[in-house]
Amino acid sequence: MRAVIAPEPGGLDALVLTDLPDPEPGPGEVLIEVAASAVNRADLLQRRGFYPPPPDVTDVLGLECSGRVAALGEGVEGWSVGDEVCALLAGGGYATHVAVPAGQVMPLPPGVDLLTAAAFPEVAATVWSNVVMAAGLGEGDIFLVHGGSGGIGTFAIQLASALGARVLATAGSPEKRELCVELGAERAIDYREEDFVEVLRELGGADVVLDNMGGSYLARNVDALATGGRLVVIGMQGGTKGELDLSRLLAKRASVIATSLRARPAEEKAAICAEVVARVWPLVGSEHVRPIVHDRVPLDEVARAHGLLEDSAHAGKVLLVP
Amino acid sequence: MRAVIAPEPGGLDALVLTDLPDPEPGPGEVLIEVAASAVNRADLLQRRGFYPPPPDVTDVLGLECSGRVAALGEGVEGWSVGDEVCALLAGGGYATHVAVPAGQVMPLPPGVDLLTAAAFPEVAATVWSNVVMAAGLGEGDIFLVHGGSGGIGTFAIQLASALGARVLATAGSPEKRELCVELGAERAIDYREEDFVEVLRELGGADVVLDNMGGSYLARNVDALATGGRLVVIGMQGGTKGELDLSRLLAKRASVIATSLRARPAEEKAAICAEVVARVWPLVGSEHVRPIVHDRVPLDEVARAHGLLEDSAHAGKVLLVP
Repeated sequence: MRAVIAPEPGGLDALVLTDLPDPEPGPGEVLIEVAASAVNRADLLQRRGFYPPPPDVTDVLGLECSGRVAALGEGVEGWSVGDEVCALLAGGGYATHVAVPAGQVMPLPPGVDLLTAAAFPEVAATVWSNVVMAAGLGEGDIFLVHGGSGGIGTFAIQLASALGARVLATAGSPEKRELCVELGAERAIDYREEDFVEVLRELGGADVVLDNMGGSYLARNVDALATGGRLVVIGMQGGTKGELDLSRLLAKRASVIATSLRARPAEEKAAICAEVVARVWPLVGSEHVRPIVHDRVPLDEVARAHGLLEDSAHAGKVLLVP
Repeated sequence: MRAVIAPEPGGLDALVLTDLPDPEPGPGEVLIEVAASAVNRADLLQRRGFYPPPPDVTDVLGLECSGRVAALGEGVEGWSVGDEVCALLAGGGYATHVAVPAGQVMPLPPGVDLLTAAAFPEVAATVWSNVVMAAGLGEGDIFLVHGGSGGIGTFAIQLASALGARVLATAGSPEKRELCVELGAERAIDYREEDFVEVLRELGGADVVLDNMGGSYLARNVDALATGGRLVVIGMQGGTKGELDLSRLLAKRASVIATSLRARPAEEKAAICAEVVARVWPLVGSEHVRPIVHDRVPLDEVARAHGLLEDSAHAGKVLLVP
């Protein structure tokens, strides 16, 4: 198969398209012939050497894909060769073939074509597991998402709106802010010119904040929380460390949660994927949540695809087509 | 009534025993003739001016009491004058009489005498709401409690053991550590000589940490957590601020929760008290959880009672008897 690896950590030129043996589906695994993968910010970190794959995971990049079932490992039920599927991966999506535990294989969201379905697994699993399963976002809650125009952001705005939350998002350009509002945000905040803490305080604070900045936003995110609020950190683009004032957290009876998907055991990923299929796919089918795709980039232009995220030149997902 | 206030913030001599008009039970309130109150560390902070009572709350100190129902406010059902009760208070326990919302009034724990019952409301509500309701401690979980020989600690060790958790506690003297083990801790850690992080790591990390130190322990508490662990901060004896390394939190998919009881709305307190009566009192009745009382101090020696906590000279609860 053709596949992308980054044998020497580095910049865009660290990405190498190469030929590797086709993976074999192990017991309980499904082999997928990839129709599309998508670029996640974690892939950029992995390329630079800061996010190595977990033990026993391929060093081929790529955390999600869509495609057709090509073979079934021992004991797999419920799927047949030729089925159109999408999947949450621990790695291996930037390739023509990938093997994945069956619990992470999902049917296509209703009404979404095979190629575009690659835009969903990672954002749906990330946002659902964090915003709903961990932080318990509910109807009428105030939800703030940073980076509202990215892959996670565009999905989170739509999902939270569909769940009846009041959504605010931060974004860096007028076009991106316009997109956030189109997708359901009641207000998009220009983080360069406005203080999101002030905006949230006027509304009584955020019940849930979904944050991709980490250390640099920690104190202000806590300040933006409402009583009982939950800050969920899933990225650290602004550094890993920050000062936490526990007296402020305590006065609000608030919590800080930090999570990632990739290192979770397969059974947790399977539980998340099952909820995604049961709870998120119907929202896609009823057009409450639609895929936001910035571009479809051929696999041999993978460096250009990484460049789009690196420059924050994208809005929504960047797909990779082998 | 006789009551203790601290009109000028300060040391032990800031405590003033005075005569005040008897409180009137408002609608939905119960007037209690106090049999005993108990000293909490929050009272020391209030005396020093760092923990003012919430709006509309008496400035008489005291967050819990036992006693007899002396009068019922409008609309109160389920209690009769003369009933023996204990109660979680927002203030007012250091007195001969106190008025409290009916939802915070509880029957005595089974088998506990009226006076001793004052040892339970604050620790039971604090530990249950944080360790079980917020942090979800379950059977087989590893639980670390700091300050294991204090009022909260002695209760938390017993409750967590009764719930089937494996309990570790920190304490500062051989006698206090012996008490922790007697109460059910599988190991009591000498925090002056041992590194609790090392001890917990050998066990795979703590699923739940109950912390009263705050800033000074923040980084090490995070280091002591297991995957999916929850750090619950309820005190800040080691300062309010600490550096939080979100990459460590994220690698563990862990969370930091900080809470307090006093400022919660009455309906939340009522919900907590209802769970305490339903879930904790039976454990007291079956002798899984017994009151640990260090001393019973007459109300006019309140300064001595505060001194015991200030010097950490106590083990368990210090009761105040008007």
